[in-house]
Amino acid sequence: MILFNKIVIIGTGLIGGSLGLALKKQHLAGCVIGLSRQRKNSRRAKKVGAIDAIGSSLEVVADADLVILATPIDTIIDLAGRISNKLKKGCIVIDVGSSKERIVSKLSALIPNFLGCHPLAGSEKSGITNLQDGIFKGSICIITPTAKTNPYALNKVKLLWNKLGAKIVILSAKKHDQALAFTSHLPHALAFSLISAIPERFLKISSGSLRDTTRISSSDANLWSEIFLSNRANLLTALSIFQIKLTALKLALESGNKKPLVSILVSANKKREKLK
Amino acid sequence: MILFNKIVIIGTGLIGGSLGLALKKQHLAGCVIGLSRQRKNSRRAKKVGAIDAIGSSLEVVADADLVILATPIDTIIDLAGRISNKLKKGCIVIDVGSSKERIVSKLSALIPNFLGCHPLAGSEKSGITNLQDGIFKGSICIITPTAKTNPYALNKVKLLWNKLGAKIVILSAKKHDQALAFTSHLPHALAFSLISAIPERFLKISSGSLRDTTRISSSDANLWSEIFLSNRANLLTALSIFQIKLTALKLALESGNKKPLVSILVSANKKREKLK
Repeated sequence: MILFNKIVIIGTGLIGGSLGLALKKQHLAGCVIGLSRQRKNSRRAKKVGAIDAIGSSLEVVADADLVILATPIDTIIDLAGRISNKLKKGCIVIDVGSSKERIVSKLSALIPNFLGCHPLAGSEKSGITNLQDGIFKGSICIITPTAKTNPYALNKVKLLWNKLGAKIVILSAKKHDQALAFTSHLPHALAFSLISAIPERFLKISSGSLRDTTRISSSDANLWSEIFLSNRANLLTALSIFQIKLTALKLALESGNKKPLVSILVSANKKREKLK
Repeated sequence: MILFNKIVIIGTGLIGGSLGLALKKQHLAGCVIGLSRQRKNSRRAKKVGAIDAIGSSLEVVADADLVILATPIDTIIDLAGRISNKLKKGCIVIDVGSSKERIVSKLSALIPNFLGCHPLAGSEKSGITNLQDGIFKGSICIITPTAKTNPYALNKVKLLWNKLGAKIVILSAKKHDQALAFTSHLPHALAFSLISAIPERFLKISSGSLRDTTRISSSDANLWSEIFLSNRANLLTALSIFQIKLTALKLALESGNKKPLVSILVSANKKREKLK
């Protein structure tokens, strides 16, 4: 079932490239054109069948029915300004950035049929070598429409993610950023800080607990700096609340009494149960 | 190859029970007797073949060749006082606790052939229902002898862990606790605090990053309170160093400049590379 005749994906990294693979596998596109700042990425994407052809310039968006912006956040915003006057009428544009407020406010003003999307399907293994068409299956995709969003465009984008197997959650960009500050950006900030705190000589005396808690500290530094900065206020709030919890644990530890410590850990156990 | 004729395991939870399974699978014991505070645990351990028989009281250690203390830390210390005068000459006693200084100083004074051991093979899934004979294969087992350790006992215990497939690391109890404060106790403290900081309504809007960074916050509250308290000074040091790193990230974030943030994240990426 072809949903869009011509799809252009700008940024053929982990998410963009995997989207190409999945769109083609599900036969949702007439053709998929890919563009990438690094020529070797789009060449690789073509080689593995994630895109049908490599776009030679941004002019390629001119007759696109869907444009997917799958680059780091600052580049998404920059690209929007550069493509907005090239799009044909009715062309839908989505992004897949990890924070939404800044992107949605800028892109909604520039592009009539813009919709912010955030598939929670990333990984610490960014880039073209880790493409998987199945990463969206069973994952959550958050869509952040505004009051002005065209219902036709929204339905079509919902259908797209549905066909890729994602469970759709509709949130305002503001709510999205508040939630993700806690559930994604905070864990990343802690993982980066945790691995930084471990003396190098101790690294080899470790097991699964350090490996799992720091897995995401391998995440791309440039990509994540932009995510952190684009959601700065919410992340600072999340960090403050985390620090209150950490201080409570530290005080219980300093007290030397087991009871308050057990009580903190039991509450954590119960909260964690609800994540499953 | 029978290494010990009679082995008594006190505490048949995840580590104790899995040890029983592994010892029997490798035919390293003439017989394995299990004791557990909760009768249902030892019954279950017998049912799954982790032990040959259930000990009716601590008197069962009287003719043991190896006693394995596999309970939470405070209980290990308590048990040592209660069994030390019941052991036959030459009986080797090991524990599998997650901190070593307190245990080794107390138990070495009480039991001539005591050796502190810490197999880095635990899991957030404690208890008898998660036994696996293979959890020691390829894992690290830290052994913490003292100047007074009997070399014969040390060699026999090394051979035991070797036969179970563990890679042995010899450390002083002090070094062990300094290292593990960073590589295990700190990640646990952060995971407990992280899950505590997440507003419950956001839990469902999350992905693998929160799941992995908080996996170990399901760890047993009583067990971990005792681990934290028994390694309090080292853990407080590790927490302070972590907080310095987190503050650096926070300041970079507050500055709004990408460059210092990227630099912190790139260093973290490089450190994480060394963990593999």
